[in-house]
Amino acid sequence: MDRRNFIKSTAAASTVALVSPDSLFDFSSKIDKVKVGIVGCGMRGQVHLDELLKRNDVEVVGIAEPDQRMIDRSNKIFAKHNKKPVEYFKGLDGYKKLYKNKEMHAVIIATPWEFHAEQTIAAMNAGKIVGLEVCGAMNLQECWDYVDTYEKTKVPVFMMENVCYRRDVMAVMNMVRKGMFGQIVHGQGGYQHDLRNVLFNDGKQPYGGGVEFGDKGFSEAAWRTNHYVKRNAELYPTHGLGPIGTMMDVNRGNRITHLTSMASQQAGLTDYIVKNGGVDHPNAKVKFKQGDIVQTMLKCENGETILLTHDTSLQRPYNLGFRIQGTDGIWQDIGSGGFSQGFIYFEDEMKHSHKWASSEDHLKTYDHPYWKKYETQAEGAGHGGMDFFLMNDFIECIKANKEFPFDVYDLATWYAVTPLSEKSIEGNGTSQEMPDFTRGKYKTRKPVFGTEDYGF
Amino acid sequence: MDRRNFIKSTAAASTVALVSPDSLFDFSSKIDKVKVGIVGCGMRGQVHLDELLKRNDVEVVGIAEPDQRMIDRSNKIFAKHNKKPVEYFKGLDGYKKLYKNKEMHAVIIATPWEFHAEQTIAAMNAGKIVGLEVCGAMNLQECWDYVDTYEKTKVPVFMMENVCYRRDVMAVMNMVRKGMFGQIVHGQGGYQHDLRNVLFNDGKQPYGGGVEFGDKGFSEAAWRTNHYVKRNAELYPTHGLGPIGTMMDVNRGNRITHLTSMASQQAGLTDYIVKNGGVDHPNAKVKFKQGDIVQTMLKCENGETILLTHDTSLQRPYNLGFRIQGTDGIWQDIGSGGFSQGFIYFEDEMKHSHKWASSEDHLKTYDHPYWKKYETQAEGAGHGGMDFFLMNDFIECIKANKEFPFDVYDLATWYAVTPLSEKSIEGNGTSQEMPDFTRGKYKTRKPVFGTEDYGF
Repeated sequence: MDRRNFIKSTAAASTVALVSPDSLFDFSSKIDKVKVGIVGCGMRGQVHLDELLKRNDVEVVGIAEPDQRMIDRSNKIFAKHNKKPVEYFKGLDGYKKLYKNKEMHAVIIATPWEFHAEQTIAAMNAGKIVGLEVCGAMNLQECWDYVDTYEKTKVPVFMMENVCYRRDVMAVMNMVRKGMFGQIVHGQGGYQHDLRNVLFNDGKQPYGGGVEFGDKGFSEAAWRTNHYVKRNAELYPTHGLGPIGTMMDVNRGNRITHLTSMASQQAGLTDYIVKNGGVDHPNAKVKFKQGDIVQTMLKCENGETILLTHDTSLQRPYNLGFRIQGTDGIWQDIGSGGFSQGFIYFEDEMKHSHKWASSEDHLKTYDHPYWKKYETQAEGAGHGGMDFFLMNDFIECIKANKEFPFDVYDLATWYAVTPLSEKSIEGNGTSQEMPDFTRGKYKTRKPVFGTEDYGF
Repeated sequence: MDRRNFIKSTAAASTVALVSPDSLFDFSSKIDKVKVGIVGCGMRGQVHLDELLKRNDVEVVGIAEPDQRMIDRSNKIFAKHNKKPVEYFKGLDGYKKLYKNKEMHAVIIATPWEFHAEQTIAAMNAGKIVGLEVCGAMNLQECWDYVDTYEKTKVPVFMMENVCYRRDVMAVMNMVRKGMFGQIVHGQGGYQHDLRNVLFNDGKQPYGGGVEFGDKGFSEAAWRTNHYVKRNAELYPTHGLGPIGTMMDVNRGNRITHLTSMASQQAGLTDYIVKNGGVDHPNAKVKFKQGDIVQTMLKCENGETILLTHDTSLQRPYNLGFRIQGTDGIWQDIGSGGFSQGFIYFEDEMKHSHKWASSEDHLKTYDHPYWKKYETQAEGAGHGGMDFFLMNDFIECIKANKEFPFDVYDLATWYAVTPLSEKSIEGNGTSQEMPDFTRGKYKTRKPVFGTEDYGF
């Protein structure tokens, strides 16, 4: 039976469970060790590499990475784990060579945003399960391409949105699922994170030390900043939308119907360049198209509204600014993710005091079982432990043949916010319809992430 | 010289200063005692009455109020000040009789929203200076009517936006004017105040005790709630927009160019009725059109964005949610207005800590001179003292023949948010152009409120 036929027959048997991506492997037998490749082993890919090398149920089988400096850094991570480095595939098309590895089950893609679509679609076509890093799409067609390729190949994609796993976010979602907030009405989130020293550096160190970008920048400054030159959009929607969309069952009984976006002027990046590189630095004259603050309002079919804020070009303390609000409760995130870094109010319990309480006691009490179970293993993992859970879900879903908590439909919807917001801003705030990437399946799809039987 | 000619000649002499509203008075001579009438002496008007009766430079000369219960309450305020009640004009057209008082210089209008336009325009046409309470317009034409009537009569209107005088807001504005936030990029504010016990009561007490409204409700429940039945809009834009618009010099070197709005479903009011009146109460079946959360994004010509949130139908602690953000600083209001009820961050001063500081120290240091000067007098005044400043400006501007800090152009612009947001929501978030009510004068108009020589 060739791959196509194998996938067809398996797909017919089960449309929900993961479907074997490659006829070379018999997924009906248990996979004890998932063979993973990495596409893009920059600063973010190295975090994933570190997580993967910690695990006994994973073998890293190859890495596509064009930058020798990143390869050197990756080698140090192998050394830290007393493991021998794997083969590196260089060049921008290194991923194509990596995908030829017949033993490889899955790839993690953590490359510049503009490569996500071609690399993910090629992976699906090569039968490799994909874990795809966050960002937004370059255009709306790309989102349909993810969906269509998935529906053609049945090779699953995991949308690697790590903030969904933030401990306070999962505790709040736990409370939402228990109905403690009553009927959910509104949510907020965003990416309010001063990235100026990510967007500019000295071409040697990944963070700061100069005001260079593009050809003269290193790491994210080499490519991410160019998006700020050429685009004006909600460039990074998933950290806000993932957690809030999950709590609102988007694509699982609910869907986003439309959105509008608005962007402020650009002032922050130029100010940073002038302050740190001088008014005569050539970059002081660069016209950055991206507004410092981009806000996007999204409407859901079930009536809820969502506000996203992209705020990465100005000085500010880190605060994703989550809020979830229902008829019985409200949570407002004011910090960087600890249990005490938020306010909460439930009028019944708090005897109509009309006063915020620290979120600490509630979030401790309703700490998600998944976090309680793996607290120790998560210690030391990236982003306060959430990167452990992200990787754990990716690997455990593959091993258990279970569907990913965030799948290709979530990927398409979340990524689509970027091109839709871009168009809305271009049109002075015109309303943009969000396509139903599930083609009606959202009506019967059930929430996976954070449900009671979730967790491994 | 008849009134029209008097006004014309005065207007020619000075287009900035207050112009005499009535030829019966010679405003070039000093007014020591301002003769004021009140239109609408409900719960809000009574706060103004109390402030007016405290002052030696004011004489309350008449009140238009149709509800005997409110008249009884007002009489108690006169008694508290050992003053004899004035004549009351009953009936919905009582204001017309009041305006016939030839000695009266000015009126304060604190009536149901739907009466603001006709009562204000009639006052201007009668030569009475107007202090008009906050809300939003019923339609866009009304906003033009305010402006056109002002330009015809030259009778000034004071937009009575009290939150502009909140002590923390004025301190922050003081810092904005000193350039401490750098170039201003973004602001937020709104009306996030649980009004459920204002919107519903037992028909006897003004707050709560039942789930009645309209004909069976008392005070605001008798009329305000009907707006929630019939409309879906940013119903109450000025508490957020006044302070932020002032900091951004809207109508004074800057202007709002367009906006979009989005509304969530309605759930909060029905939930409240069911919980407090039972599922069988007739009001449990009322279809409230107003969404629980209405957010509006506004764009300024100089590039800044403003977010307004109307959130009055759900349980929540009071928090207008102010934020002002520039290249050098950010302030985030998290409470109900005290100096310590906010966060602040200035990276230079805070050595790039990326951590919020309490706003307390900064707001103490930059406490606005106006507040420092009148702190003692403001004690005990409504809304934490800000209602003293509101009234003080109204009376002192009239006495000193100085222009009001918020005038008819601010009134028109701020009020216009309501009908524009209504239209935007109706059109699934279509972008709405904000008219330039100043007809180009915003280019040369200078900020008044909060400037260095401000205050009496």
